[in-house]
Order: sequence, then structure tokens, then C-alpha cells
Amino acid sequence: MPMNSLLHISKFVAPEIIFGLGALSQVGESAARLGIKKALLVSDLGVLEAGWCDKVLDFLKEVGIDAKVWYDVTTNPKDLEVAAAVESYLESNCDGIVAVGGGSPIDVAKAIAIIATNGGQIKDYEGVNKITCPLPPMVVVSTTGGSGAEVSQFSMIVEKERQVKMAIISKSLVPDIAIVDPHLLQTKSARLTAATGVDALCHAVEAYVSLAATPLTDVHALAAIRLIASNLRESVACKTNLKAKAAMAMASLQAGLAFSNAILGATHAMTHQVDGLLDLHHGETNGILLPHVMEFNMISCGEKFINIAEAMGVQITGLGKWKSAEKGICAVRKLLRDIEIPEHLAQVGMKEEYIQKLSANAVKDACLVTNPRDCSVEQIEALYRKAL
Amino acid sequence: MPMNSLLHISKFVAPEIIFGLGALSQVGESAARLGIKKALLVSDLGVLEAGWCDKVLDFLKEVGIDAKVWYDVTTNPKDLEVAAAVESYLESNCDGIVAVGGGSPIDVAKAIAIIATNGGQIKDYEGVNKITCPLPPMVVVSTTGGSGAEVSQFSMIVEKERQVKMAIISKSLVPDIAIVDPHLLQTKSARLTAATGVDALCHAVEAYVSLAATPLTDVHALAAIRLIASNLRESVACKTNLKAKAAMAMASLQAGLAFSNAILGATHAMTHQVDGLLDLHHGETNGILLPHVMEFNMISCGEKFINIAEAMGVQITGLGKWKSAEKGICAVRKLLRDIEIPEHLAQVGMKEEYIQKLSANAVKDACLVTNPRDCSVEQIEALYRKAL
Ligand SMILES: [Fe+2]
Ligand SMILES: [Fe+2]
Repeated sequence: MPMNSLLHISKFVAPEIIFGLGALSQVGESAARLGIKKALLVSDLGVLEAGWCDKVLDFLKEVGIDAKVWYDVTTNPKDLEVAAAVESYLESNCDGIVAVGGGSPIDVAKAIAIIATNGGQIKDYEGVNKITCPLPPMVVVSTTGGSGAEVSQFSMIVEKERQVKMAIISKSLVPDIAIVDPHLLQTKSARLTAATGVDALCHAVEAYVSLAATPLTDVHALAAIRLIASNLRESVACKTNLKAKAAMAMASLQAGLAFSNAILGATHAMTHQVDGLLDLHHGETNGILLPHVMEFNMISCGEKFINIAEAMGVQITGLGKWKSAEKGICAVRKLLRDIEIPEHLAQVGMKEEYIQKLSANAVKDACLVTNPRDCSVEQIEALYRKAL
Repeated sequence: MPMNSLLHISKFVAPEIIFGLGALSQVGESAARLGIKKALLVSDLGVLEAGWCDKVLDFLKEVGIDAKVWYDVTTNPKDLEVAAAVESYLESNCDGIVAVGGGSPIDVAKAIAIIATNGGQIKDYEGVNKITCPLPPMVVVSTTGGSGAEVSQFSMIVEKERQVKMAIISKSLVPDIAIVDPHLLQTKSARLTAATGVDALCHAVEAYVSLAATPLTDVHALAAIRLIASNLRESVACKTNLKAKAAMAMASLQAGLAFSNAILGATHAMTHQVDGLLDLHHGETNGILLPHVMEFNMISCGEKFINIAEAMGVQITGLGKWKSAEKGICAVRKLLRDIEIPEHLAQVGMKEEYIQKLSANAVKDACLVTNPRDCSVEQIEALYRKAL
């Protein structure tokens, strides 16, 4: 634990968290406690078809809360989707938001909340602390073991025209209440389980080595890495392995608490650009880039990479510092291979000719500021090339 | 990590936390952000004389917040002190509370907040979830590395007539913003530093083995034990050791997050009774009782006691399970001796003749419910006798 980080001022924010099997049943009571009378229920088609929205509507009805359902949300949600949803929120006279889903519906829900009380367009809020008016009450129910959006102060929205994923960062984006019920992870495909689990791993690793890490974020980051190293394979292997689902839900939550307060690094700065351009799964792109960024970052904080190795389950006794750190990266590669994350960006549609533009945008991404190693545009280009 | 605890519904609540050297400077901005215009500044004489109240008043003035100072707070604060402070709050037309101090002023601040908006007397709220109306905004600044009151959902108030320490437990007692500035720990005496540090150790140990522990509370509890094992001695030894003060402030905070959400156990259930009767320092009484309660609890969760031993710095390689667990308790005893915590209750005024009444009250204490080993009144009596 780097004690000097105890001597700087740091802030830590978390929502009220309700976690466990059956936690979904608390959604009505939670919304009622926040004073919501008419909710916009934000979700996506997959979650709707899995039947979770109907369950939520029932729980809301039990406490007398009426809801309008909005499920027109895609992976890497776009600014236009947000604008349409806001119209629906206002037309239906909603006074609060309930989101059910993975990172995408939750990010859209946060964006709706911003516009509902602050007006304007979502791109007006890109960056850090641009929100001035309080947001409507928000309850989020997370259905994937990955995004951490249920606890984070981030919303990521793609601006279609510029093909850029915007990071909107503000304490007021932390939902009032986060509900995590491992049951809801059982309806995801193996591929989505793998991709979202890898996203959580990236959150934990990037938050742990972040320049803004604190002892409070460190304990959650390391706990998340430990849980992922020993449960992600099993979770991908079997839809009904509730023990693995519960562990991954907890890992995602803790990785979320870590990165929400410590921010991220170069992996996410680079992935956001690919997300904006190619509309791939955020978690897969992260997974392809992560080992390369770890190798690049290693010299900036060797001790931390030893702790990552230990958390990944590497036996480091007798190994030297750098050998231990390297073994940690090998363990990450092995995990990625075992759950069939692609190894090259070219496999998912990336082309050499995109690299220059993506790199120019990546160096402007808010997440690069906290990367532990200084990073020039040439170094970003080299990392994209290595991962190609 | 006991995975079955992931399968039950658990809740986790934390305030917004501002931590670090110089964090005190955020108190004005924090109070303003919560909409406070006229604050009751709750503190105690020691804190006032150390000059911290004046600093806070300056920061409040800078943002245009007027404040009435209330510092008539004693160790183990009494119901009558609360009633008098509420009168002052109402007379001065306050609309929010700023507390500066250790556990006592913060507990009083929470009690004032309850009565200010809910009416009645503080004893009406004894127990769990008795508060119905929202509380006024609350910023707390912690000056000791111990109580954890800055993040907890507890307020402990002595009812003078019954000589009982009441536990008031409710999510709404979690302050809105907790400010922890290690600078403020430098004005405490060695004895108070030792006692409050031991209180934090008890919080961490009791929360870790609590029946209501979750993976979220476990990471904070173990991190706190590690920090205390390697920093409390140094913090007691030297008033100006800022590195040790910062580590103890962080330990107290993390122990607070753990016990606020996992509750405590037999040590606190027994200490609360002594607090109510003899008005001793809560932390010293806890320290005398803790090793005896650990020995008693050990058979209920041997694995957890091994982790405690490791966190206390015990080399457990090659030791068996029970030997490791016992060595952890030895390490706790060694730490207590090193910082001159008394070993016997008789040294601080306890008498054999009190034991029966105290034990009868201890079995009714809210903290006993989560003790990992079932505990009869006879067993409590035996524990008091062992510690006598
Ligand atoms: Fe991510
Ligand atoms: Fe305590």
C-alpha cells in the first residue's frame, strides 16, 4: 500500500448497495423510498426478453409505482438514443429512473437523468463535473458481472457524428441505490459473460495501478482481481453455476467501486476509441489490449504488479520482482485464452489505417490522465500495432 | 472469503468520504454543497482547545455559513447532553450539523439530528430502524483514529437513569459527508491514541467474524487489521508521526465501514454495559475484553481467525489451523501490552458484584446478535470474570 497516497486529499463515493440472491425483490421498496411515483424503466431487448423487466414492473406495481418501459438501447449507446429516451421521460411525466441491464442501459439511464433536470444535449456534459443541477432519483439493477456502472460516477455515450465515445464523469452519476442479484447473470451467453468479466478485470487492474488509486480503492481492486481469477472461467463455462455468478457479480461491483473512485488508464482510453468507431463489445476490445498495456505500464509500479500477480494466483515465492510481475501478466493472458477472448484486434475488424486517428483521440481521453506511465501518441500507436 | 454470504441479501452504505492531509479545508464547501446556511458545530472541550473548532469556523465563514458552537459533550455522551444540544439547535434556527471530534461529539451530532426532525427523546429511537423522518444535512470531521462514527450507522448514547448505553442503529445516521484529515490526530495524548486505536481494532475484528459479514465488509476489516498491526505502536509512540497517524485514520475509517455494515459482537455488547455504568474509555474496556472474547469465539470460525493472524503479521507457514488462530490472539495481546492498555477490568474500577447485572444487560445488547458464537448469560459472566 503506497502510504504517500494517504497524505493527499482523495474522495470516495459509493451508492447504497443491495447485494445477493433475491435482491431484485427490493427494487420496488427502493424506488418508493426515493420518492419515485412514475418511473422510466430503462433496459434493452435482451434483458426484456429474458423476462427481467416484467419482474421489475411487478415489484414496482406492488408498491404503487407506475412505469413507462424504454428498451431502445444498443451496445455502446449513442447520443440519439439518449435524446429519444429523454423525450419519453418528459412526455410520460416520470419523476425517477429505474435501470435494469448491463453497462449500456445504465449509462443511458444516467444520461437521461442529466438531461431531464439539466437540459441541453448529452455532449454538453462530456468531461469531468459539468453537471450543475441535482439529478432525479435513480435505482439501478445490474444484470452483468462486468460494467460496474451500477456503482460508478461514469456514463459512456457515443457521439455518432464524431464517432467518439464520450466520458461523462461526475459524482452525481453515482446511482442512489444499486441492486445486484446474481440470479440475473444466468441468462447471459458465454461470450457476453466472458466479455463483461474481462471488462471487470480491466477495471480492477487499471484502477489498482492508477495514479489516483487510494487505500480504499486498492482493497476493492485486489479483491476483484482475486475473485475474477478464481471464478470467471467457471462462470463462462456454466450458465447455472450460481456460486461463480455471485462471485463475478461481487467482483464487478468491487471493480466498479475501485475504478469509479480511482479512474482508469490507457487500456480504456484506447478501447473507448475502438468502441466509438467499430461498435464492438467493449470488454473484448479491453481484453485484447490489456496485456499489452500491462507490459507497457509495468516499469512504472513494479510492486503493484507483484500484488496483481499474487491476486491472479501466481506463486511468487522465490521469484524476483520483475519475474513475478511478468508472471502476473502471463496469468492474465492464460485467463483470456481460456475463455476465448480474441488475441488480435484484426480479428474483430480493426485495420492498420485506423490507428493514427484512434491514437490521436486516445491521448485526449479522460482515462489516460491517471495511467501510471506517461504515454505519447507514438506509444499509443505502437500499442495498437502490437495488439493488431 | 465465505462464498455463501454472497448468496444472502446484504446491504452496504457509506458516506461520501474526503480523506487526506488538508482535507479539513473542504468542510466549508461540503456544508455549502449540502445546502447548510446555519450550522450547529458540535465538538468537545479538548477539540476546541486544540484549535480545530476555530479552523472549522473560518472555513464555514469563507463560504458564508454562520455557526453556533456546542461543545458540552463528555466521553460516553448522555441523553441529557443531547436534549440540551437540541434546544440550542432549534433556538439558533440551525438547518444542518457539522461535527468535529471523536466518537462522542459525532454520536451526539447524530442524536441531535434525529430529535431535530423527528421530535421526542433520544431513548425513543433505541434499537434498529426507529427513525422515520429524513435528518438534516450532516458533515462530520473525525479527529481520532478509532470510533469510525464518521462513516457508521450507529449512535451510542448513555441513558443516565438506567445506566445503560443505548445503541441507535439506522442507515439515516450515516453522515452525508465524512472528512478525515490525519493532521487532526496529532493533538491527542498517547493514552487516547492507544485507546481509540484499540477501539478500531475491535471494530475490525468483530466485524470480520460477525454473522452479518459480507465480502465488501471483509476487505475493509482485514485492511484495517493490517494497518493497525503495523502502525498503532508508532502512532502511540510519537505525536508527530504523520505517516502513522494517516495509516491509523485510514484504519479507523475502514474498520468503521466494516462494522457499520456487518455490526459487531460480544466484545462491544459487554463494553457498552461497562461504558454505561463506569464511564471509562470505551477503547480501553474493549481492549481488556477483546482477547478473551476472541478465545471464546475461535471455534466458531477457525479459518477467519487464521486470516486475522496473517493480518496481524503472524508467520503462519507450517503451523496448523488452531495454532495459527491462537498465534493471532497472542499477537493482539502483544500489541495491547506494547501500547499499555490495562490487562484487567479491576484496574479500571470494575467489581465482581457488578458482573451479574452487566451480563443480564449484555445479552440484550444489539451487538450480541451478530456474534459468531452463541452466548448465554452464564458465558458472558464467565468472560467478565476472566477479564476481571
Ligand atoms: Fe470498462
Ligand atoms: Fe467501539
